[in-house]
Amino acid sequence: MKLTAVALLSTAVLLLGCTQPSGSDNTATPTAQFTLHPIGKVVKEQGRTLIVLDPKYQPGLLGVDKLTHITVLYWFDRNDTPEKRAILHVHPRGNKNNPLRGVFATHSPVRPNLIAVSRCKIISVKDNIIEIEQIDAFHNSPVLDLKS
Amino acid sequence: MKLTAVALLSTAVLLLGCTQPSGSDNTATPTAQFTLHPIGKVVKEQGRTLIVLDPKYQPGLLGVDKLTHITVLYWFDRNDTPEKRAILHVHPRGNKNNPLRGVFATHSPVRPNLIAVSRCKIISVKDNIIEIEQIDAFHNSPVLDLKS
Repeated sequence: MKLTAVALLSTAVLLLGCTQPSGSDNTATPTAQFTLHPIGKVVKEQGRTLIVLDPKYQPGLLGVDKLTHITVLYWFDRNDTPEKRAILHVHPRGNKNNPLRGVFATHSPVRPNLIAVSRCKIISVKDNIIEIEQIDAFHNSPVLDLKS
Repeated sequence: MKLTAVALLSTAVLLLGCTQPSGSDNTATPTAQFTLHPIGKVVKEQGRTLIVLDPKYQPGLLGVDKLTHITVLYWFDRNDTPEKRAILHVHPRGNKNNPLRGVFATHSPVRPNLIAVSRCKIISVKDNIIEIEQIDAFHNSPVLDLKS
């Protein structure tokens, strides 16, 4: 595993062409990669929209019942392919009449790191479940984080 | 590697206790994990604050020069340890006089998935570099995503 990690890191360094990353080199990018573990998922059932956390994360909800809104970070899991993550230009809102724009100037669900951010109105909090008014996510979308 | 992957998956399934994830089971959580690759980094130098993208992502900035503000997602890389990612209760703003609260009811930089979200005022855009007014991130913080 260690050898594999070293090999991967070496490859990344070669690919990025930054053998000496430094703060003052404006072309250098960190070569690290980071791992996300879903904390729960979006559940849409019987006209309700729920954020259902894995019970082990339930302590993290302490105080969420005092909030009116919550920021939900979720993963655009249907787009998690190397091809879609390489797309950098899109027609905003998927409408080909809209001129091409860079993904970083949009909220497009295709982008290199497939993180969605959505501000949601809280209806109720019970145990490991937050009922929200609505979210522009699919049923079963993996939830990554919640913020006040 | 395949065996390792199978072993990890099996462990994850056992840990989560969800052998049959389904939409109607409110205790089930996706067992997947997702990988993030930094698209750039925060550079703070000579009183300026820059988002410096890896040049390969520069096409994604098309149209960012038309925006006044941008949402920057970055990684709290200094807290990327299993111990810190397991913290679910914090004293808001690191002040022990503030009663403990769940991380999901705060903006704490310790949380299971270390994603920061910050809305920033754009000063200028040139090539692969966005100058912003300020950001509550460290020099060299890895940048994950940008959104309008």
